[in-house]
Amino acid sequence: MGQMTIKDVARRAGVSFQTVSLVLNHPEKVARTTRETIEAAMRDLEFVPSLAARSLRKKPSRSIACVFAVGARPDDAAGLMQETDEGLLLQAFATVTDQHGYTLIHRRWCRDAPDGLSRITGLVSEARVDGMVVFAECRDDPLIAMLQAKRFPFVVFGLDAPGAHFAARAERDAVYEAVRYLARTGSRSICFLKGAQDGRRSPTVAERFRGYRDALAEAGLPLRDDLVVPCGWTSEDGYRATLSLLDRPDRPDAIVAADDRVAFGVLKALHDRGVHVPGAIRVVGFDNCVQSAFTIPSLTSIEGPTLEMVRFAFATLVEVIEGTRTPDDLAQKLFPTRLVVRESTEAGTRPQL
Amino acid sequence: MGQMTIKDVARRAGVSFQTVSLVLNHPEKVARTTRETIEAAMRDLEFVPSLAARSLRKKPSRSIACVFAVGARPDDAAGLMQETDEGLLLQAFATVTDQHGYTLIHRRWCRDAPDGLSRITGLVSEARVDGMVVFAECRDDPLIAMLQAKRFPFVVFGLDAPGAHFAARAERDAVYEAVRYLARTGSRSICFLKGAQDGRRSPTVAERFRGYRDALAEAGLPLRDDLVVPCGWTSEDGYRATLSLLDRPDRPDAIVAADDRVAFGVLKALHDRGVHVPGAIRVVGFDNCVQSAFTIPSLTSIEGPTLEMVRFAFATLVEVIEGTRTPDDLAQKLFPTRLVVRESTEAGTRPQL
Repeated sequence: MGQMTIKDVARRAGVSFQTVSLVLNHPEKVARTTRETIEAAMRDLEFVPSLAARSLRKKPSRSIACVFAVGARPDDAAGLMQETDEGLLLQAFATVTDQHGYTLIHRRWCRDAPDGLSRITGLVSEARVDGMVVFAECRDDPLIAMLQAKRFPFVVFGLDAPGAHFAARAERDAVYEAVRYLARTGSRSICFLKGAQDGRRSPTVAERFRGYRDALAEAGLPLRDDLVVPCGWTSEDGYRATLSLLDRPDRPDAIVAADDRVAFGVLKALHDRGVHVPGAIRVVGFDNCVQSAFTIPSLTSIEGPTLEMVRFAFATLVEVIEGTRTPDDLAQKLFPTRLVVRESTEAGTRPQL
Repeated sequence: MGQMTIKDVARRAGVSFQTVSLVLNHPEKVARTTRETIEAAMRDLEFVPSLAARSLRKKPSRSIACVFAVGARPDDAAGLMQETDEGLLLQAFATVTDQHGYTLIHRRWCRDAPDGLSRITGLVSEARVDGMVVFAECRDDPLIAMLQAKRFPFVVFGLDAPGAHFAARAERDAVYEAVRYLARTGSRSICFLKGAQDGRRSPTVAERFRGYRDALAEAGLPLRDDLVVPCGWTSEDGYRATLSLLDRPDRPDAIVAADDRVAFGVLKALHDRGVHVPGAIRVVGFDNCVQSAFTIPSLTSIEGPTLEMVRFAFATLVEVIEGTRTPDDLAQKLFPTRLVVRESTEAGTRPQL
């Protein structure tokens, strides 16, 4: 659906567009019945006032929504109580919004659910939030298209979405740096647990694979299909994938996991099979979660500046909401990561707490 | 402040209480200026319509707030990116509310901040939420008293707050069971890392200590001051506390940590000092977070039915909001925990994934 203008609303309500404008900016000056007719027309048309009109209104909601794209992810007990990025990111956004006097609203958005998009549209058309942070997992997410069509203030988090404001990590460079480090320090057969097979987060998985491939090429190491292993995002997935790897005749001498939680399972499986880390196999994680400094051995991991990204995304959103950033002035930032080296790749590393 | 009635509002606005009632239930039947006068009086008096009056109103917000009590907790980068209960609980509540068509609003409430309570009061007086889940850390939390005075629908999570609906864990029984198990299986000097020294969560810490003390008494073991060690809630806290313990001449033969994250630090410190777990010292955590099955050795831990508690708290809140539960019919539930035994207390335990 295209962007509705106040002229569309005026036509529907059978009034002049000046009257619609008056309702938007000085509703108290319009007779009640006229106002109600116009408001009904706005609802029918899912009309969203433009930035300029809205900024003239007296009561912004001072609320933003964090909308998490979820695929067919099970909402079962086990899945819910996983320590996932969603919980951490909610916590970080909640605190940052709170510090700035904004209220945070949480929504999940499931493109497979029949009423998925309309539940999010409701937040927009009822003006319950001033803007949105979208945690998208693919660039063609229909929610992004909808928000763009409505010219509603939003920022994409964690993905470089063309044409939108975004805060994302330099995923390719992150894995490139880790694999280059492993190759330079002696690893020759580096396995990449590349992430889930279910198509979610596919741009992220693809970017990381690019970093892996490029680093191997630079080091003159072959790209071996048998060393690129699809794997889910939990410790159990990492555990099982590693046991399978160890059953092969030709073991890798390093494993790069797509996530620290996966790496915890990798370390456990290697320990249970009596494989020494880093002596026989070296291990690298991704995310540098707090626990990574305390695994046995402690885990070398890739750290993204998550809180910095959260602050950037929120600040950008506020600029867009308040109209100090023009729609064409896209804020798009790929944040660099850094490799935190610990015992799982270098024995005797001093603890980096 | 006491509960304001519509008579107080009527007096303030200089109208009859029937007119105030009309504004609450059929605002469209009241002249605009009169309505605005009455609404201003409501705001001035921080008037909150009673449950019965509110249930007659046409538009409930279909929103609930999760309000987390925070002390002087630093909102710095390190603290924010810790995997804490707050993130996990937010994620669980967000999903459950979402499944039921409710919107989740997040707020932090800091009793030390000058505008702390008024920011929460705003949500109530502006009727932006229909109810609240309060994550309180002490029973005399002023937020609880405020909500009780206003007769606003709320449920306390994680603490047995007298006079309020609550979902809490049987904290005393949880630690009692763990320590009894350790004593019965041969531990004689059981150290208890009892939790933070800063007074937060003090009822929880006290309940857990009671369980420790009772189990020792039952087993005929002495309660030794030197084995009750205050300790923060992070892995680093557990790491440092354990190093100090190991420097003493008289080492314990078991350590019960107040939290799994703390236990991760305990395991790491024991490993770094070459102390065998469970051979020389056995370790028990609390919370049974997903990673605990993958530590080296895997961690025996106390599991609370968190998701069940979240569902109970939400269902109770909805009953109160919808008026199907009367205010005097308190829903108060202490949920039992269970001990999940793994390698950190019994060598050779089969993995419990």
